[in-house]
Amino acid sequence: MNTPVALAPRDSNWLTQSGSGGWIVAAIEAGGGQVVDEAEAEALIWSDPAAPDRLRATLDAHPGLRWVQLPFAGIEAYGPVLDHDRAWTCAKRIYADTTAEHALTLTLAGFRDLRTYLREHRWTPGRGRNLRGARVTILGAGGVAEALMAMLHPFDCELTVVRRSPHPTPGAARTLGLHDLAEAVGQAEVVVLALALTPTTRGIIDRSALAMMRPDAWLVNVARGGHVVTDDLVDALRDGAIAGAALDVTDPEPLPESHPLWELDNCLITPHVANTHTMLKPRLAALITENVRRFSTGDDLLGRVDPDLGY
Amino acid sequence: MNTPVALAPRDSNWLTQSGSGGWIVAAIEAGGGQVVDEAEAEALIWSDPAAPDRLRATLDAHPGLRWVQLPFAGIEAYGPVLDHDRAWTCAKRIYADTTAEHALTLTLAGFRDLRTYLREHRWTPGRGRNLRGARVTILGAGGVAEALMAMLHPFDCELTVVRRSPHPTPGAARTLGLHDLAEAVGQAEVVVLALALTPTTRGIIDRSALAMMRPDAWLVNVARGGHVVTDDLVDALRDGAIAGAALDVTDPEPLPESHPLWELDNCLITPHVANTHTMLKPRLAALITENVRRFSTGDDLLGRVDPDLGY
Repeated sequence: MNTPVALAPRDSNWLTQSGSGGWIVAAIEAGGGQVVDEAEAEALIWSDPAAPDRLRATLDAHPGLRWVQLPFAGIEAYGPVLDHDRAWTCAKRIYADTTAEHALTLTLAGFRDLRTYLREHRWTPGRGRNLRGARVTILGAGGVAEALMAMLHPFDCELTVVRRSPHPTPGAARTLGLHDLAEAVGQAEVVVLALALTPTTRGIIDRSALAMMRPDAWLVNVARGGHVVTDDLVDALRDGAIAGAALDVTDPEPLPESHPLWELDNCLITPHVANTHTMLKPRLAALITENVRRFSTGDDLLGRVDPDLGY
Repeated sequence: MNTPVALAPRDSNWLTQSGSGGWIVAAIEAGGGQVVDEAEAEALIWSDPAAPDRLRATLDAHPGLRWVQLPFAGIEAYGPVLDHDRAWTCAKRIYADTTAEHALTLTLAGFRDLRTYLREHRWTPGRGRNLRGARVTILGAGGVAEALMAMLHPFDCELTVVRRSPHPTPGAARTLGLHDLAEAVGQAEVVVLALALTPTTRGIIDRSALAMMRPDAWLVNVARGGHVVTDDLVDALRDGAIAGAALDVTDPEPLPESHPLWELDNCLITPHVANTHTMLKPRLAALITENVRRFSTGDDLLGRVDPDLGY
């Protein structure tokens, strides 16, 4: 018998933008599942990145749902809904390589001042510097950090990782806890944000953290806009307190056209495109197929969320 | 006794732009040399990137010069001057890592469409694609190719190398000769030019080579502008025969402000900055010091040029 799986909500922007749900239905079926209404389902693939109340209502109405798959890696919007009444999984790690690739792209683009070059229509003097040998601090030790460390290996960078519990991170020269943030960011030539957004990490890069950074340092954010206090960053970029920022995520998001960050020469912005729909669909489809199969056979699900930690 | 070394010409733009010759004098002295006039010198550090006639005249006037160090990696301007009457060295390989870093930067910037994002002042839809897993063809098998292959290793790319003699290249899935150019570029999602400019390779990317490329392929040039027939490239970019080009070198160079390449959305141009003076000085100083030391003791010089091959 096929495992009954629901896909909802069908009207979410995310589902519409990703080409409607046909490809997810196919992924569910490839894993031995069958798509049914929530009332008959044992599992739920949830398709809205920010509708926690609606999800709560769905779960309350359908207590037979024993597993919820969130198709995103950053699930901070769902923190209040997570519970111990069923299994929760998210898409952490499956986007890690593309997100790390974008982090490296932004780092190189910042160091080598591509913003200026790519806006010019003339031959200009040389600027910028090498990434090779630079001191890099990564906040976070999950899949993105791991993939980024592998990509940085040929560059002989000196790597520091900052994580909740500072047990040594393979590939990093040193690992520090969040309490050692001053030491971690104070020596870095580039600080890469690749951590989950939780109440503890919201606004972690504020005026005081920016003041600890070197004036030649870059900030790269591929995590969540909420990690950075945007007004403090604008001031730091204007004052030259840091060399520059390369952001794939912002707060607010989308960033309004009138926002001062757009005008700053030392700020590179990409519109949350580390993982476009084109990039994520094959990876997410494979995860859904595999997790539906595992759910059917009772195997451990991939991308399990700890409801207490929120990621 | 200190080895007598000349540094000339003292009035070259290159020397002036790199902060005058004091740092080279210091590098010569660090290797046990002493800076003297050409008439008394046994070795010559030549400081003009494109003055072959002047160098020829200097060598003819001072037959005691037994070694010439050219401080550039691409020395095509000096092909006609190279001879078997003395040792020739150039700066090949010492800029390899920075040039490879720039090649990777341009490749990622092209694939992820940074030109469009970095010119916008608003949140735009996602575009671009991953480098991970892409088919990459590198023309050239010298230091830049080697460093680039190491940097691409974490991306699980399928690497093809094209070189003069197609004996297997470590790190590449396959190695082809120049005669197999059609096969090499026809399957690639990105073609990186990282070879020396010689009479054989001048104009190697012409209308017919561009026509062999995939419509989704990028061309990345960190070698010499003369490898590409510029008018043919403009046509290919306009017609969508290839996806885009990311160029650190152009023909002519500098590229005039009126040139059509500047206006094309699918063309990224950086002004020959893979190695800025800031990046190259410490590396070149170390090479000069080491080669002066080796010349004094009769050891093999680094970066030997084969006068018959021209690189």
